[in-house]
Amino acid sequence: NQEERTSLPSTSVVCPITYMVIPCDTLSQFSEDDWVRHRSSLRYFKNLGTIFKSYIFGGLILPIAALTCWSAVVYVAFLYAPQYGLSVHVPMAPLSNTIGAISLLLVFRTNTAYDRWWEARKNWGLTLNRSRDIVRQGLTWFKKEDTALREQLVRYVCAFAYALKAHLRADEDTEAELKGVLTESELAHAMQQKHVPNHLLRMLAAIVHQANLLPMQASSMDTNISEMEDILGKSERTLKTPIPLSYTRMTVRFVMIWLIVLPLALAPSCGWACIPTQVLVSFCFLGIEEIGIKIEEPFSIISCEAICAAVKLSCEDMLNSYDEDVLVVAKPGPVSFAVTSTV
Amino acid sequence: NQEERTSLPSTSVVCPITYMVIPCDTLSQFSEDDWVRHRSSLRYFKNLGTIFKSYIFGGLILPIAALTCWSAVVYVAFLYAPQYGLSVHVPMAPLSNTIGAISLLLVFRTNTAYDRWWEARKNWGLTLNRSRDIVRQGLTWFKKEDTALREQLVRYVCAFAYALKAHLRADEDTEAELKGVLTESELAHAMQQKHVPNHLLRMLAAIVHQANLLPMQASSMDTNISEMEDILGKSERTLKTPIPLSYTRMTVRFVMIWLIVLPLALAPSCGWACIPTQVLVSFCFLGIEEIGIKIEEPFSIISCEAICAAVKLSCEDMLNSYDEDVLVVAKPGPVSFAVTSTV
Amino acid sequence: NQEERTSLPSTSVVCPITYMVIPCDTLSQFSEDDWVRHRSSLRYFKNLGTIFKSYIFGGLILPIAALTCWSAVVYVAFLYAPQYGLSVHVPMAPLSNTIGAISLLLVFRTNTAYDRWWEARKNWGLTLNRSRDIVRQGLTWFKKEDTALREQLVRYVCAFAYALKAHLRADEDTEAELKGVLTESELAHAMQQKHVPNHLLRMLAAIVHQANLLPMQASSMDTNISEMEDILGKSERTLKTPIPLSYTRMTVRFVMIWLIVLPLALAPSCGWACIPTQVLVSFCFLGIEEIGIKIEEPFSIISCEAICAAVKLSCEDMLNSYDEDVLVVAKPGPVSFAVTSTV
Amino acid sequence: NQEERTSLPSTSVVCPITYMVIPCDTLSQFSEDDWVRHRSSLRYFKNLGTIFKSYIFGGLILPIAALTCWSAVVYVAFLYAPQYGLSVHVPMAPLSNTIGAISLLLVFRTNTAYDRWWEARKNWGLTLNRSRDIVRQGLTWFKKEDTALREQLVRYVCAFAYALKAHLRADEDTEAELKGVLTESELAHAMQQKHVPNHLLRMLAAIVHQANLLPMQASSMDTNISEMEDILGKSERTLKTPIPLSYTRMTVRFVMIWLIVLPLALAPSCGWACIPTQVLVSFCFLGIEEIGIKIEEPFSIISCEAICAAVKLSCEDMLNSYDEDVLVVAKPGPVSFAVTSTV
Amino acid sequence: NQEERTSLPSTSVVCPITYMVIPCDTLSQFSEDDWVRHRSSLRYFKNLGTIFKSYIFGGLILPIAALTCWSAVVYVAFLYAPQYGLSVHVPMAPLSNTIGAISLLLVFRTNTAYDRWWEARKNWGLTLNRSRDIVRQGLTWFKKEDTALREQLVRYVCAFAYALKAHLRADEDTEAELKGVLTESELAHAMQQKHVPNHLLRMLAAIVHQANLLPMQASSMDTNISEMEDILGKSERTLKTPIPLSYTRMTVRFVMIWLIVLPLALAPSCGWACIPTQVLVSFCFLGIEEIGIKIEEPFSIISCEAICAAVKLSCEDMLNSYDEDVLVVAKPGPVSFAVTSTV
Repeated sequence: NQEERTSLPSTSVVCPITYMVIPCDTLSQFSEDDWVRHRSSLRYFKNLGTIFKSYIFGGLILPIAALTCWSAVVYVAFLYAPQYGLSVHVPMAPLSNTIGAISLLLVFRTNTAYDRWWEARKNWGLTLNRSRDIVRQGLTWFKKEDTALREQLVRYVCAFAYALKAHLRADEDTEAELKGVLTESELAHAMQQKHVPNHLLRMLAAIVHQANLLPMQASSMDTNISEMEDILGKSERTLKTPIPLSYTRMTVRFVMIWLIVLPLALAPSCGWACIPTQVLVSFCFLGIEEIGIKIEEPFSIISCEAICAAVKLSCEDMLNSYDEDVLVVAKPGPVSFAVTSTV
Repeated sequence: NQEERTSLPSTSVVCPITYMVIPCDTLSQFSEDDWVRHRSSLRYFKNLGTIFKSYIFGGLILPIAALTCWSAVVYVAFLYAPQYGLSVHVPMAPLSNTIGAISLLLVFRTNTAYDRWWEARKNWGLTLNRSRDIVRQGLTWFKKEDTALREQLVRYVCAFAYALKAHLRADEDTEAELKGVLTESELAHAMQQKHVPNHLLRMLAAIVHQANLLPMQASSMDTNISEMEDILGKSERTLKTPIPLSYTRMTVRFVMIWLIVLPLALAPSCGWACIPTQVLVSFCFLGIEEIGIKIEEPFSIISCEAICAAVKLSCEDMLNSYDEDVLVVAKPGPVSFAVTSTV
Repeated sequence: NQEERTSLPSTSVVCPITYMVIPCDTLSQFSEDDWVRHRSSLRYFKNLGTIFKSYIFGGLILPIAALTCWSAVVYVAFLYAPQYGLSVHVPMAPLSNTIGAISLLLVFRTNTAYDRWWEARKNWGLTLNRSRDIVRQGLTWFKKEDTALREQLVRYVCAFAYALKAHLRADEDTEAELKGVLTESELAHAMQQKHVPNHLLRMLAAIVHQANLLPMQASSMDTNISEMEDILGKSERTLKTPIPLSYTRMTVRFVMIWLIVLPLALAPSCGWACIPTQVLVSFCFLGIEEIGIKIEEPFSIISCEAICAAVKLSCEDMLNSYDEDVLVVAKPGPVSFAVTSTV
Repeated sequence: NQEERTSLPSTSVVCPITYMVIPCDTLSQFSEDDWVRHRSSLRYFKNLGTIFKSYIFGGLILPIAALTCWSAVVYVAFLYAPQYGLSVHVPMAPLSNTIGAISLLLVFRTNTAYDRWWEARKNWGLTLNRSRDIVRQGLTWFKKEDTALREQLVRYVCAFAYALKAHLRADEDTEAELKGVLTESELAHAMQQKHVPNHLLRMLAAIVHQANLLPMQASSMDTNISEMEDILGKSERTLKTPIPLSYTRMTVRFVMIWLIVLPLALAPSCGWACIPTQVLVSFCFLGIEEIGIKIEEPFSIISCEAICAAVKLSCEDMLNSYDEDVLVVAKPGPVSFAVTSTV
Repeated sequence: NQEERTSLPSTSVVCPITYMVIPCDTLSQFSEDDWVRHRSSLRYFKNLGTIFKSYIFGGLILPIAALTCWSAVVYVAFLYAPQYGLSVHVPMAPLSNTIGAISLLLVFRTNTAYDRWWEARKNWGLTLNRSRDIVRQGLTWFKKEDTALREQLVRYVCAFAYALKAHLRADEDTEAELKGVLTESELAHAMQQKHVPNHLLRMLAAIVHQANLLPMQASSMDTNISEMEDILGKSERTLKTPIPLSYTRMTVRFVMIWLIVLPLALAPSCGWACIPTQVLVSFCFLGIEEIGIKIEEPFSIISCEAICAAVKLSCEDMLNSYDEDVLVVAKPGPVSFAVTSTV
C-alpha cells in the first residue's frame, strides 16, 4: 500500500502540483553506502542538479510563479510610471530590518517541525526497544512448558507495532496489516474493538497475568506495557496537534508580504534583474517554510514498515533460539566453567 | 460552554476589539484531511486572503492604527518643518543595529510561549496515557468478582480528566462537568472538597487500596496516580506563572519605541511611502509578539474536550470488552495454541 | 516578612538607586483576570506608560545617565574639533558587524537566566506535587488507628516546604516560619540541626519507617522523599552557582564598549540627535542584560509563599476528609454498585 | 581494523579527494595535557597553520575550486561585457537579505548534527555505566559459590559492548571482536543468531535468571538489561536515520546558489578582489556545512574502542578483587569498628 | 592543593601568558551578599575597570597584539601603496555577509560549552543529593545495633565524593584526599584498585548487602548506587570528550581569517582609526570564543571542594543526631499526639 499512497489523486486538473506526495525513497533507511555518498564532496553538484526533481520544489512552483509574474508587472510599471508623472520610492531599509525577525521565525518554525519529526522517530525506535525487551522478559520468565502463551506474547507484541502503524496512517487498513500476525480468532476479536492498539496492550497485560509470574517479574513486564501506552499516546498527540495554526499562518503571511514588497524596492535600482532575483529569493524563503511543512506530520515519512519488520524479525528470532539459549548458560554452583562450556 | 467562553463581554463600547476571544475552530483536532490541506500549495494565497479574518490581526488593529496615525503626523511634520527652519536627521543605523537584538528577543519570547503550550499539550496527552494505563491495570489485576470496584475505578479516572479541565478554565463549572461521570453520592462528596482534582486522586488511591491487590500491583497503579499528581501540579504551574512580566513588558516597550522612532528615519527619504511601510512593519513585529501572547496561556486553546472524550471512550471500551478479552488469552501449560485458538 | 525584604537599606545616600529591590506584585500568582488583562490590546500603551515606574528601569538610570553625558561630550567635541584641526572618522561598519554577536550573547544570556528561573519554578511546583503525593500515600496506607503518625506526617511535609523557603532566602528566619507548623518539641529538635530541610526529610523517613508499612508501600513513599532530596539539592545548586561570571562580565564589557564607541560614529552624521539616540539604544541593550540579571537568582521572585500555602491547604484538606473518603469507596466483591452508593 | 578503515579506496583516480576518511587522531580521548594545549593562546596561530591539513578542508577542495573558477569567469565577463554593450547590475541587497536565513539554517543544521553526535556519545557512556552497574550487582548478589555464573556474566557484559561496536560499523567483523571475549562454545552459539547484540542481552537475562536471586534483585539487574536494549535501539536509530534529506539538500542548494550569485554582485565594485573573496566566503559557508555532515554519522568518530576497553578493564577489575572486597566490609551488629578494621 | 594548581609553571619565559590558570575566586560559591553585588547597577563600571585584570583578557593578549600589528602594517601599506601605483579595494559586503554565520557559530559554540559546564555542575549537585539520600536510607533501615556498618556506610559515601574529585582533576592525589575519610585498612585496600571511585561503589553495594535489609529496602539503596555510577560515567564522558575538534578549530579559523581581512576593508575609509577598531573588534570575537574554551573543561572551575565538604557535613550531621531523631517520631497507634510530644 506504499505505492497506493504515492498515487493520491490530485485535486484538480488545472493545478496538478497542489497536493504533493512523498516519494518512497525518502522512507528507506540509511546503510553504510548511503552514508559514504552522503558525505561525498560531489554532493554539492548533485544537489544542485536535482533541484527541479526535488519534491520540495514541486510544492513551490505555484507561489514562485505567481511572485515572478508580480515582479514582472512591477518592473513594467516602474518602466512606464515616469511617463505618467508617477514616482514611488520604496527604500530597502524596512525590508532589511524586518527580514531578520522573519528569518528567525521561519527557521525556528522549521526546527520545531524537525523536533516533532525526531520525537516521532524516537517513539518508533522505542516501539522496537520495548518489543524486544518484553519478549526477552517473557522468554526468560514464562514457565518452560507455557509454549502457547509464549507464542501468543510474541504475536501480540508484533501486532501492536503493525496496528500502531495502521492507526497513524489514514490510508492503511488495520485488518490487512494484522492478517499474518495474529491468529484468526484473535484478529476477529481485535477488529471488534473501537481502538485496536489500546486493545492489544490490554491483551498483552492479560497474557502476562495468565503466565502467573512472580509479582516482581509481572511488574517489570507491566512497565514495558505502560511505556507502550506512552508510545501510543505520544504518537496520537503528534498526529492530532499541529504547530499552533496562528504561528504557521502568520509566518506564511509575513514571508508573502515581504516578497510582494521586495520588487518595489528592487525594480528602480536593478532593472530587469529584479525578476530572476525574485525567483531565487522566493525559492529560499518559501523553501525553508516548505521543509518545515513537509516534516510537520512525521508518520508518513518515517519508515514505519522497516521498524515493524525489525520488531517481527527480532522477536521471532529470540523465540526460535529459545531452546538452545538455555543450554549455553552456566550451571549455578562452584563448577569450573570449562566443564560447563563443553556441554 | 465553549460558546459561552467565546462571548466574553468586551470591556468597552468604544474599543470592542480590545479583548479578543479564541475561535472554536483552533480547538479542533487535526485529521488526515486537515493535514492534506495544511500542506497544499494553495495555502500561500489562502493565508494572505484570511489576514483580516485572523484573530491575531484583531488584537493588532488598535496599536497599528495608532502607529499609522503617528507616522502620518511625522510625514506632515517633515513636509512643513523646513518652512520653519527646523531640521532633524535621524539616521537608519541605530535602528538597524538594535533591531537584531529586539527580533531575537521577540522570537525567543514567542518560542518560549510555544514551549509552554507544547508542555501543556504533552501533559494533557499524558492524562490520556495514564488513564488508559491505570484502567488496563485495574482490569487485569482486580479480582473477577469486584465488578463494583472496577466500575468505580473507571468512573474516577474519567472524572479526574473532566475535573482537571474545569479546574484549569475559569469559565467552566466542575459540578456540571462531573454530573454524568460520577454517581450522585460520589459527586456530592467530591463537591464538598476544596481541591476537587486532588481529592479524586486521593479517592483513586483508596479504591486501589480497597481492591486488596498484591503489593507490587498496588505499587504499579500507585505510580500512575503519582504521575497524575504531577500532571495536575504541572498544569497549575503553567496556569499560575506567566513568563516573567519584566521580560514580556520590556519586549513590548522595545518594539513600540523602535516603531515610534521608525518614521522619523524613513520620512525624509521615502516620503508618503513611510505610512504604508509603518503599517506593514508594525504588523510584522507586533504580530510576532501577539502570537506568543495568545499561546502563553495554553489551556483555553488546547482541545481538552476531545481528550476528555478520548479518556472516556478508551476506558469504557476496555471495561465493556472485559469478559471476552479474558477468553482469548491462551491457557498456561504446554498446550499447542491451535487448540486454544479454536475455543 | 515580605515587606521587610522590600525595604533593604540602600547602600549610600548619593546613589540610592544602586541596589534595587523586587516589588511584591511580581510575586503574585496569575488568575484568569490577570490573563485577560495580559492579552488586552491596550497593553502596548500601558507598558509604554509604565516605563519609568518599572523596576528594570530603576537599575538602568545610572549607566544610561553616564552614557548620555558621554555622548553629549562627544557631540561637543565633534562640534569644536575642526577648529583645532582635529578630525576623526569612525565608520559604522565595525559597530554593525559586532552588534550581531553581542546581541546573540545578550539574548542567550537572558534566556539562560530564564531557564534557571523556570527550573527553579518547576522545582517549587514539584514540592507541591510530591507533598500531596506522599500525604495521599500515607493516608491510604497508614493503619487506621495511627492517627498521631498521620498527623505528624502532614506536619513534617508542610514543614519541609516552609523550611526550604527560608533556607533559600537569606532574609527569612527558619524558626519563625516553622512555628505554626511543627509542635514545640519537634521545632526545638529541628532547630538544633545544622541543615534543617535535610533533617526534616530524615524525620519523614523515620515516620514512614515507624508506620510499619508493607515494604512496597514504604518504598513508594521513600521514592517521594528521595525526590524531595533532589528538589532541595537542585535549589541549592541554583542558589549557589550563578552563570559563569566570565560570561556575564564579558557580556557587560562588550555592550559598554560598543555603547561608548557608538556616539563617535553617530555624532558626525546626525548632530545633536546622537544624544537621544544614545539614550534609547542604551536602554535597549542594557535593558535586555538587566532582565537576565534580575531573574538569574530566582528564589526571591518566585511566589514561594503561595506554594507553601497550597501545600498546607492541600495536605490538611486531605487529612480532614479522611473519614468520609473511606466510606465512599465501593466494597470489594460482586455487589452491584447501586447498593454501595446509597450507603 | 582502525587502519583498514582509514584506507577506504577512493572511488576514482581523477577525483581522489571525493571520499574523505576520518583520521585516527580525532578518535583519541582527551587527557589533561590535551586540555592544557586546547586552552593555550597559541591555538589561534596553530589552527590557522593547519587549515590545509584539516580533513574538513579536504572535502571542500572540489566545490571551492569550482566556485573560484566561476568567479574568475564572471570577473572576465564583467571586464569585457561593456565592449559588447552588455550591462548587468546585481545589487547586494537580495544577497544580504537572504544570507541571514541561510546562515541560521546552516548553523542550526550543524548543531542538530552535533546533538546527534552528543546523543550517540552519551549512549556509549551509558554502555560503560550500565556494564559496571550490572557487574557490581552480580558480584554483590550472586551466591558466593556461583563462580562460573559470575564469570559468564562478566564475559557477556563485555561481549555486548564489543558486539555493539561491530554492529554499528560496517567495516568491523563481530566474530573477530568477540573472539577473546566469549568462550568458543558461547561464540559459536552467538554467531548463529541474526542479531548478535540483541541475542547477548537475551543471554544476560538467562544468566541472571539462572542465578536464582531474590525477585527484587533480579528485577534491578533486569532494569539494567532493559536500559542496554535502549542503548542498542537508540544507536540503531541514529545510524539508520539521517537528518531529513530535504533539509540537508535544500541547505546545500541555498548556499550554492547564493555563492554562485555572489561574484555577479561583487565583480563590478571590487574587480579582481572578487576571486580571493569568493574563496574565503565559500570556505566559510561550505565549511560550516561540512562540519555538520562529518559528525552526522557519529559512530565512526566516537572512540568506541576506548570505551569497550574501559568496560573490560572495569568489569574484570571488580571480578578480580571480589574476594578481598568482602573482607573489608564491617560485620553487622554493635561491634565497634576499630575491631573490624584490624582484621 | 588549590594553590598548587594556580601556580602551574608557564611553559616559556618569552610567552608567559600562553598557559593561563584559573583564579581561585571563580571557584567560590555564591552567597546572598554576592547576589546583591551581582545585581548592583555599579557593575557596569566595575566590569569595565577590571577588563585588564580578567583572566579571559590574559588569554587574548597574544592574538590581539598580533592582529593589531597586522592592522598597523595594513594601514601603512595603504598609505604608501598609491605611490607605487598599487590599488586594492576590498568591499565591506563579504565581511558583513559572513559575520552573521560566524557570530552564530561562535555564540552557539560558547553556549554548548556552557551546557557542558552546567551538566557537570548538575552532576556534582546530584552527588550531594544521592549521598544524603543513601545515608538517610541507611540510618532509617539499618538495624539499630549495626553501628559499625552505619559508620562505614557514611565513610564510603563521603569517600566517593572525594575520590571522584581527585579522579577528575589531574593534579590531585586520590590517596591524600581519602586519608581523613576512610580508615587505614580501607584506604590501603582502595589504593590497590585500578579505578578507585568505581571500587568505592562496589564496596557500598557490599555494605548494603551485609546489612541484610528487606529486599525492597536494599533495592532502593541500590538505585542510589546505580545513579552514582551514572554520575561517575557522565563526569568521565565530559572530561574525556571535548566538543568535536573540527567544530572548535574551524570556528577559530573563520574568526581569524575574518579579522585578518578586516583592516583591508577598513583602512581606506577610516585611516589610523582602523588600528584601535581592530583591537576592539578582535577583543569582542576572540573574547566570545575564549569564554567557551575556558568553561569547556568544567571540573577545574566547579567548586567540587565545597560540594565534598557539604556531603561530609550533611552525612555526619545525620549520623550524629541519629539517637535523638528516633525519639521525636510519634508512636504508632491511636495515641493522641499531645502525649507523644511531651516525651
